[in-house]
Amino acid sequence: METENRQRYPGSLVSPEAKIGQNVRIGFACHIYPWAEIGDGGAVGDYCIVGHPAGGSSANGRTVIGPGSTIRSHTIVYQDVDLGRDFQTGHHALVRERTRAGINLRMGTYTTIEGHVEIGDYTRLHGYVHIGQGSRIGSFVWLYSLTTLMNDPLPPSHIELPVTVEDGVVVCVGALVMPGTVMRKGAFVCSGARAAGEIPPGAVVEGPRGEIRLHVSQMVSLESKLAHPWMRHFANAYPPEAQERLAALRDEIIAQRRRRR
Amino acid sequence: METENRQRYPGSLVSPEAKIGQNVRIGFACHIYPWAEIGDGGAVGDYCIVGHPAGGSSANGRTVIGPGSTIRSHTIVYQDVDLGRDFQTGHHALVRERTRAGINLRMGTYTTIEGHVEIGDYTRLHGYVHIGQGSRIGSFVWLYSLTTLMNDPLPPSHIELPVTVEDGVVVCVGALVMPGTVMRKGAFVCSGARAAGEIPPGAVVEGPRGEIRLHVSQMVSLESKLAHPWMRHFANAYPPEAQERLAALRDEIIAQRRRRR
Amino acid sequence: METENRQRYPGSLVSPEAKIGQNVRIGFACHIYPWAEIGDGGAVGDYCIVGHPAGGSSANGRTVIGPGSTIRSHTIVYQDVDLGRDFQTGHHALVRERTRAGINLRMGTYTTIEGHVEIGDYTRLHGYVHIGQGSRIGSFVWLYSLTTLMNDPLPPSHIELPVTVEDGVVVCVGALVMPGTVMRKGAFVCSGARAAGEIPPGAVVEGPRGEIRLHVSQMVSLESKLAHPWMRHFANAYPPEAQERLAALRDEIIAQRRRRR
Repeated sequence: METENRQRYPGSLVSPEAKIGQNVRIGFACHIYPWAEIGDGGAVGDYCIVGHPAGGSSANGRTVIGPGSTIRSHTIVYQDVDLGRDFQTGHHALVRERTRAGINLRMGTYTTIEGHVEIGDYTRLHGYVHIGQGSRIGSFVWLYSLTTLMNDPLPPSHIELPVTVEDGVVVCVGALVMPGTVMRKGAFVCSGARAAGEIPPGAVVEGPRGEIRLHVSQMVSLESKLAHPWMRHFANAYPPEAQERLAALRDEIIAQRRRRR
Repeated sequence: METENRQRYPGSLVSPEAKIGQNVRIGFACHIYPWAEIGDGGAVGDYCIVGHPAGGSSANGRTVIGPGSTIRSHTIVYQDVDLGRDFQTGHHALVRERTRAGINLRMGTYTTIEGHVEIGDYTRLHGYVHIGQGSRIGSFVWLYSLTTLMNDPLPPSHIELPVTVEDGVVVCVGALVMPGTVMRKGAFVCSGARAAGEIPPGAVVEGPRGEIRLHVSQMVSLESKLAHPWMRHFANAYPPEAQERLAALRDEIIAQRRRRR
Repeated sequence: METENRQRYPGSLVSPEAKIGQNVRIGFACHIYPWAEIGDGGAVGDYCIVGHPAGGSSANGRTVIGPGSTIRSHTIVYQDVDLGRDFQTGHHALVRERTRAGINLRMGTYTTIEGHVEIGDYTRLHGYVHIGQGSRIGSFVWLYSLTTLMNDPLPPSHIELPVTVEDGVVVCVGALVMPGTVMRKGAFVCSGARAAGEIPPGAVVEGPRGEIRLHVSQMVSLESKLAHPWMRHFANAYPPEAQERLAALRDEIIAQRRRRR
């Protein structure tokens, strides 16, 4: 079996016990551990590790990658990880133990999920994003470059106060998300802003003091006439099966504004 | 041919169709695709991918690396890329499809060029720099660590509003460069500042509100008596052939200040 | 000897001249240079380079990794580096030439030490941390994600003005540490704050203007009743041998507050 794998995946170290689905491409010089399961139609880039050993209670865990997934080069996925179908990474990404994600999570280049993390469906993490241990992230979330979800309120300490990010939230480039922040559905954190405490549904967080003055539905692009919440103008970037959920989420966020008045 | 390559580049996967120049060093466990051209005297570090396949209209593109280039370990350069002579990267860098750069581009560790990008000559990108798709960058530009050139004014949306960076611009560590920013020649963005809209030639952008009060020629180091524009005290870091262009750029930036009075 | 190494470390390129201690694990596809010394009980992850060649006066240097160290995958350690026992890295880390560190330095994923750097004992660098050339860092220091220690006061210039970080200092996520900053013992830089000049012992630096109004001993968590300096509630995260030093450091920082009154 091992000899067979060496011929099938030249230059790579693929355990004969790993479950590799139909039509899976394994790149050059990959390292696939015995407890890895890579679903049909997946692709693993060069120099990737799938099933990196984890200690403690994760030591017997599996690494399940759903069908249709693309893991780009130099990426590491640990043991005790379960990622739904159509999972995608950029290059040099890292997913640590006890990460569970729904369908079609996309994470960018140099992005880390530190583990003990739950993520919903269709969530997008751009590059250099750092998801601290214990974070809870919903569906249809967008975290842009350099977003760091902190979890220690008195660093360094033994207190863990991870961040909660509900459905449809957007965090723009270079924002600070303080430990324990709870971002309710559709909240929007501007570039360079500081989010802390509970952010109401659809609220817009601005500036280093994290002021909240607007609801996302008041954010309009003058040139394009497009307006938030983003499901109004960007739902077509998602597959048909997601449309109903996106429409419901859009309506719920808009309704929250009326409720606040 | 393939056997020959395996002996010549032990541990690496070098396509026999790749054009490898004279005196090129290829590191350990590299992956060089058939459409790669590496110019004379180049060096490719370990675990690099040169010619990573790109989809769409880039699928037939070449990867041209000019002579005298150094690509450090764990770096990925895509298909449909053209980089001039004396190109250099740090480790773990990424250059995506449809990137064109002039001579002597230097990019730091963990720095990404997202593709569909044009860059002039002698430009320097430090570490953790993220060049968004469609950015236009001139010559003699300095982008320091963590600089992110954004391109979506209403994230997430289908609108693309990339950044333009003209010759001699400096962006310091941790600055925010908003979508659509146009930085005119010699503009200077301070550490942690926010740049947006059109920044006049030689203007200094300060703070989270992006205030413009100074011209770069008013920035003086009291201890060293050195003054901006930086071509005054740093032109000697460039080769003789670049001196005339640097002097002209320096004079043009200084002249712009007089014009503003 | 070389044949022996290929059998012992399959897929890796381990120089027969490298000094590999007892019970050292070398991962898949590693590259270990002749001048590397890896102490007993160490572990090197996949795709690591230990002893990456350095130029100039470092060209004859050794790479000494103390016993009990863990170097995680895709990490690069240069020539002319000396790291004490129990050194640890995250994945994709980089340590350049002329770095000296005491015992138990831990550096996170995507973290870079640019070289010509001295670091004390038990210091922790989280992810995406960038230690500029020439920085001086003490013991029991905490630099959180995205911390960048700058070193050029008039960028770009030939002036080098590196940062000094004394024992027990904490720099939180996304802070800016300006060139030449001297952080005295136990100083604390808040998330997103800007540190510059000399920061007194135990001083708390806040906001984009870097205001100093508090001493760390005034930072208390209302819920947990825990208070800074952090050695009060977090010393138990360190081994017995470090306790005396931590207690002395704690007392010194608290005493400095009384002295200021």
